[in-house]
Amino acid sequence: MPHVETKMRSGVAERYPDLAAVVDYLMGAGGKRLRPVLSLMAATFFEVDKDKLYSLAASVELLHTATLVHDDLIDNSMLRRGMPTLNVSWSPGATILTGDYLFARSAELSAETQNIRIVTIFAQTLMTIVGGELQQLFNDGHDHVPTREEYNQRIYAKTASLFASATQCAAILGGASEAQEQAMRDYGYHLGMAFQVMDDVLDFEGDEEIVGKPVANDLRQGYATLPVMLFEQKSPNHPTIRKAVRREPVTDGEIKAIVQAIRTSGCIEATMQEARRLAKLAQDALVIFPNTPYRQAMHEIAAYAVARNV
Amino acid sequence: MPHVETKMRSGVAERYPDLAAVVDYLMGAGGKRLRPVLSLMAATFFEVDKDKLYSLAASVELLHTATLVHDDLIDNSMLRRGMPTLNVSWSPGATILTGDYLFARSAELSAETQNIRIVTIFAQTLMTIVGGELQQLFNDGHDHVPTREEYNQRIYAKTASLFASATQCAAILGGASEAQEQAMRDYGYHLGMAFQVMDDVLDFEGDEEIVGKPVANDLRQGYATLPVMLFEQKSPNHPTIRKAVRREPVTDGEIKAIVQAIRTSGCIEATMQEARRLAKLAQDALVIFPNTPYRQAMHEIAAYAVARNV
Repeated sequence: MPHVETKMRSGVAERYPDLAAVVDYLMGAGGKRLRPVLSLMAATFFEVDKDKLYSLAASVELLHTATLVHDDLIDNSMLRRGMPTLNVSWSPGATILTGDYLFARSAELSAETQNIRIVTIFAQTLMTIVGGELQQLFNDGHDHVPTREEYNQRIYAKTASLFASATQCAAILGGASEAQEQAMRDYGYHLGMAFQVMDDVLDFEGDEEIVGKPVANDLRQGYATLPVMLFEQKSPNHPTIRKAVRREPVTDGEIKAIVQAIRTSGCIEATMQEARRLAKLAQDALVIFPNTPYRQAMHEIAAYAVARNV
Repeated sequence: MPHVETKMRSGVAERYPDLAAVVDYLMGAGGKRLRPVLSLMAATFFEVDKDKLYSLAASVELLHTATLVHDDLIDNSMLRRGMPTLNVSWSPGATILTGDYLFARSAELSAETQNIRIVTIFAQTLMTIVGGELQQLFNDGHDHVPTREEYNQRIYAKTASLFASATQCAAILGGASEAQEQAMRDYGYHLGMAFQVMDDVLDFEGDEEIVGKPVANDLRQGYATLPVMLFEQKSPNHPTIRKAVRREPVTDGEIKAIVQAIRTSGCIEATMQEARRLAKLAQDALVIFPNTPYRQAMHEIAAYAVARNV
């Protein structure tokens, strides 16, 4: 999608030459570009102005990138997509400001759609993402294994909210009916939820060298995800889980033991089943649209999301 | 302006109860609310939807507040408006995310105007502000006394850009003619420039206990402002100035000596003259509007901006 790539990098060099290199770096670091692709695919079912669509897709990816830039700084992450993060070589100040700049550019691009609803949804999506992260921070100190509702709210904020906005806004841009808009949002929403649940599976299944981070990284940081929640239901009050969510020190041996226990408990499989259920809901949302190759591709993406690397 | 105050705090408690207290704290910390007042005053010359106007004014103030939250973190500032900054008691992560949230809420409020040009101007203003700060950071290490053009660009980004947007957007909301819109922007622009030049004067004139920060704070941090630039023209290559802008260590005694030299050089008076010239340009921009009490008040604000505390 060269047009979207061009949009993503545009508007920087002529205004802030020094910043162009870093935007190129962040964009060149790649990633799957899944969110803008979803906008482009969703738009194929409607008549849309191509240039506005590219602005929308670029805005989606820049918003995502901006949140990653701040998250990596906050988490002190060193690698993202196999490349050093911005905060490794830049000062915290420059990293914060670069994220801010990307937020602003994302807002400007969303305004290029000339659609005030799209701009509003973008602003609200950013509030949802950031609000979810703040919620996690506020919960520090009085942590517990989350309820299903808390977990759903968390993965919605973290992942599904932007997926849902990416597909919904493409529908809005295409002048979709209410039902079509809702169906596109439902697709993005459920795909995003499935995607994040699988991410939580990968955190247990993945080999460190493939996933690029230590196994059970979330639990090490005190976050219990669905595999842990399901395990907790079967075997309540496991001391390692209790210590982890209270942010008390947990040894590497304890983590290895609990990972092993969870892996053999059937809870990973149950989590994957939940991911497949969500992916199915995403696919079901597509049935009101004509069965084009694009619909088939969107169907495939949902299938792929819950099958990747496992 | 209770309506604007209400808007500024609205939309948080019902979505993120934990965040409501901090937004109240930031808003309660006060400040002059000069930017939203300017929007309200500029709007009196037009027929505007009051609710949209309050959204605009609240958006202006939230954008300003968001940039301050990040700036205070970046500069490690401890006090703002006489109250502890957020970063004093909060983690860097929570402070970054709170700023992000305020950016998003500001964008959402600007979209409540239902005017895509206003949203675009807001996004671009944020890019200008952040871009200016990045420019300063990038210049670290190869610093020099700035040229007049560099200085103007810096104070535009820092202060005048948002002032100009506050008045311009009120005119846009009121369906102003091109000439009226330009005049309102000119007023805000020149007022903001005058305001920042006076701020740079205050950095030399002010007593530490009144201004709330050490005298010549900018120079201590390596930034040469207009008084220094004018002094440099009269007496080039002063060793303290050269060291300061190169971020080489400068003693307190050296700072005191250069402050004294600048104070007795006439350069402070020359800087104030420049501020008065800019304030006059702001006042001149108003002449195309009817001479209402609001116009007189805007005229007074410009006069006050270059007379405050000195």
